[in-house]
Amino acid sequence: MKFLIFTYFGVVHLLSLCSGKSIYKNGISKRTFQEIKEEIASYGDIAKAIINLAVYGKAQNRSYERLALLVDTVGPRLSGSKNLEKAIQIMYQNLQRDGLENVHLEPVRIPHWERGEESAVMLEPRTHKIAMLGLGSSIRTPPEGITAEVLVVTSFDELQRRASEARGKIVVYNQPYVNYSKTVQYRTQGAVEAAKVGALASLIRSVASFSIYSPHTGIQEYQDGVPKIPTACITVEDAEMMSRMAARGIKIVIQLKMVEKTYPDADSFNTVAEITGSKYPEQVVLVSGHLDSWDVGQGAMDDGGGVFISWEALSLIKDLGLRPKRTLRLVLWTAEEQGGIGAFQYYQLHKVNVSNYSLVMESDAGTFLPTGLQFTGSEKARAIMEEVMSLLQPLNITQVLSHGEGTDINFWIQAGVPGASLLDDLYKYFFFHHSYGDTMTVMDPKQMNVAAAVWAVVSYVVADMEEMLPRS
Amino acid sequence: MKFLIFTYFGVVHLLSLCSGKSIYKNGISKRTFQEIKEEIASYGDIAKAIINLAVYGKAQNRSYERLALLVDTVGPRLSGSKNLEKAIQIMYQNLQRDGLENVHLEPVRIPHWERGEESAVMLEPRTHKIAMLGLGSSIRTPPEGITAEVLVVTSFDELQRRASEARGKIVVYNQPYVNYSKTVQYRTQGAVEAAKVGALASLIRSVASFSIYSPHTGIQEYQDGVPKIPTACITVEDAEMMSRMAARGIKIVIQLKMVEKTYPDADSFNTVAEITGSKYPEQVVLVSGHLDSWDVGQGAMDDGGGVFISWEALSLIKDLGLRPKRTLRLVLWTAEEQGGIGAFQYYQLHKVNVSNYSLVMESDAGTFLPTGLQFTGSEKARAIMEEVMSLLQPLNITQVLSHGEGTDINFWIQAGVPGASLLDDLYKYFFFHHSYGDTMTVMDPKQMNVAAAVWAVVSYVVADMEEMLPRS
Repeated sequence: MKFLIFTYFGVVHLLSLCSGKSIYKNGISKRTFQEIKEEIASYGDIAKAIINLAVYGKAQNRSYERLALLVDTVGPRLSGSKNLEKAIQIMYQNLQRDGLENVHLEPVRIPHWERGEESAVMLEPRTHKIAMLGLGSSIRTPPEGITAEVLVVTSFDELQRRASEARGKIVVYNQPYVNYSKTVQYRTQGAVEAAKVGALASLIRSVASFSIYSPHTGIQEYQDGVPKIPTACITVEDAEMMSRMAARGIKIVIQLKMVEKTYPDADSFNTVAEITGSKYPEQVVLVSGHLDSWDVGQGAMDDGGGVFISWEALSLIKDLGLRPKRTLRLVLWTAEEQGGIGAFQYYQLHKVNVSNYSLVMESDAGTFLPTGLQFTGSEKARAIMEEVMSLLQPLNITQVLSHGEGTDINFWIQAGVPGASLLDDLYKYFFFHHSYGDTMTVMDPKQMNVAAAVWAVVSYVVADMEEMLPRS
Repeated sequence: MKFLIFTYFGVVHLLSLCSGKSIYKNGISKRTFQEIKEEIASYGDIAKAIINLAVYGKAQNRSYERLALLVDTVGPRLSGSKNLEKAIQIMYQNLQRDGLENVHLEPVRIPHWERGEESAVMLEPRTHKIAMLGLGSSIRTPPEGITAEVLVVTSFDELQRRASEARGKIVVYNQPYVNYSKTVQYRTQGAVEAAKVGALASLIRSVASFSIYSPHTGIQEYQDGVPKIPTACITVEDAEMMSRMAARGIKIVIQLKMVEKTYPDADSFNTVAEITGSKYPEQVVLVSGHLDSWDVGQGAMDDGGGVFISWEALSLIKDLGLRPKRTLRLVLWTAEEQGGIGAFQYYQLHKVNVSNYSLVMESDAGTFLPTGLQFTGSEKARAIMEEVMSLLQPLNITQVLSHGEGTDINFWIQAGVPGASLLDDLYKYFFFHHSYGDTMTVMDPKQMNVAAAVWAVVSYVVADMEEMLPRS
């Protein structure tokens, strides 16, 4: 007898999955979980065919090679840049040539900020050229730069305690790396907090779990009513050095020059392609990644990998001559890095059909070796997803953890649509994230094969099952 | 009964170490190995005192903090630079203030090459700024730079096979990283081999076991009779990208500009300090590291760590009020990175006393967590060193492997003096080597404490034993 444990509004339910009793007491389904299990199990041969094609067959390394060709050809793809629009046009052609259906572009207005000449030079206690990258949306400095003494702090709390020392200075944050979601607040909010206490500029220790003197950029956010000050990231190494110098009582002076430019919003597109559903074409399983990137490196990992395993999922399904009952929709988001701009636009346009979305999937945290999915949805849906993932037993990739959220699918998840993200080995992800190191060198074709297989099996089976995933 | 296995000219000898029989049949010693073992064992309490002081006592973290202060204050220390001479002067004062004896500087003429403005820009198939560092001793380009098509090769063999394609091109080496000693030949000889087949310049994939888009510089060597061409290192990432592009048949054009300068040799110094021997002051155990570095990063790992654990060894011994029978001599070499220039000069000056050198020690491969020593010497000396290392059992650091050689001690080893290098965890060493990433962030105070303890125990005991280490 096999039991699954569901947590539902804090109450633990033990459901006998062999009892044949419907778990959809308050839902629309008349089917028992046993019937659903059997339906999912019937996809075993299709799952194996997908795995064989992706991992061992003629499609192996295809997503890697397609990705390499795009990012080598175009380079990084910042919101508002010509590179991004070139990449969108190339992908549009790629998807058409691949024989996918309903390939089209959906217009989006996106931010257009551009890095200019920029430098940070330590003038005291010794001359030292500081590696830096302006943060996305930062204003420029005056043409002569900002030359000021440095106040080094390791936390917002320390900044508050030493608020009286900050006026007229450049605040350097040397916050320790805890994890991305905790530490990234220094990148997003560091300038605002420094400006509140009268600083002229702020430099943030890069949000990175490991460094070889590499700055890691990213978006930062100004706040209404708080003066805008220029802000950039520096390396872990220089932040730590300045912390040591400050602890020794040494005066540090930096000259910061940034000629960043903010233009009016630019035209861009979400890129869409489909395998139209055979039975319920109006119903959708959405697979996605974002095509834009930061303006350094190649954006191969963030999020080229997500884009190309998502495309690969549809390619694999098409190559096997499969057509699910529901429409399988590929969306390549634009301007995710500026705060999910393309995804917001897409949601605004399509939310009227929210009841037709069975599952929204996003890969935006690497396509390293996957171990399963992160999933957000009702326990009923989770139980179904666990069965779907059991089809990936041949790859030993069966985990279904919580927190399926991602910037580009959160609107749908908040509206009640089940959401899934790829769960993969994140060990090195923040070594490269938003840095010059995000290149094809990071990517592994075999890992991408496996990730694409997971993506294809999950999206196909959920799109082809007789019923949509149940909601809360 | 305990046996040790010695390999001697291919013959395996089994020596019963409990037999009390002299192993110095052809040597000068009249003592049995058992007597030597007992003598070494008598240092157990001293070894524990050194370990306690270095690892758990008031000296802990001292070598790390001393190193941080120097490299934060001075920065990198290229041969011929003002930084190097400043560092030498600071170290001279440090060693005097520490109360060491016979602190002095020994003049050396060293190469003076300087990095100038330099850039490599890919012009075709797309504009891409290539991170690069000119290699030490490289000539400059003409003022307008060298703009040429690229020939990518992955080995010298491939360059030979495609020699007819190289003329008038920039050769890009994308050799795989095998290990440092095998792969570094592309850095040292790449320009010469490219010039032989008519190339205008060469770009070498950095010799690094891991990369976050970081170029790794180092010395390169021109050859008489072969035209000198400009040469630089690029990142693993860009070398791989150009390899992929070339494999697709894409034409690559690069513009390389370098304004490197070579000046007449400069004045520098080996920095020397001692604890003079109480009984055989003319006899020497030498401990060393090199004070110069490349001109990027802080030279904290290569070889700041080696310098500061070597100083720390003498400090620990002095702090414990110990004075060995033989002189313990600290030498901080200059211009190691240019080919052991300071070490050669020192050897020329002191080789007349070669018979008085019991052991030469160098730490120049990191001061990460040590596991023992690498040692070169007779089997008799090796057996003694194994006994000495057993004193480090409390730290579980007892290995004595082969290959004690190092650039700065090789002259002595070749002259028959036993030599030892610190054996430590090299896993990350070539992540940072000769790159901007060689900073204090790499260093670990606790690992340096342990390395200094090993260094102090070995140098003290060998300097204090009744007899010098036997030679072949």
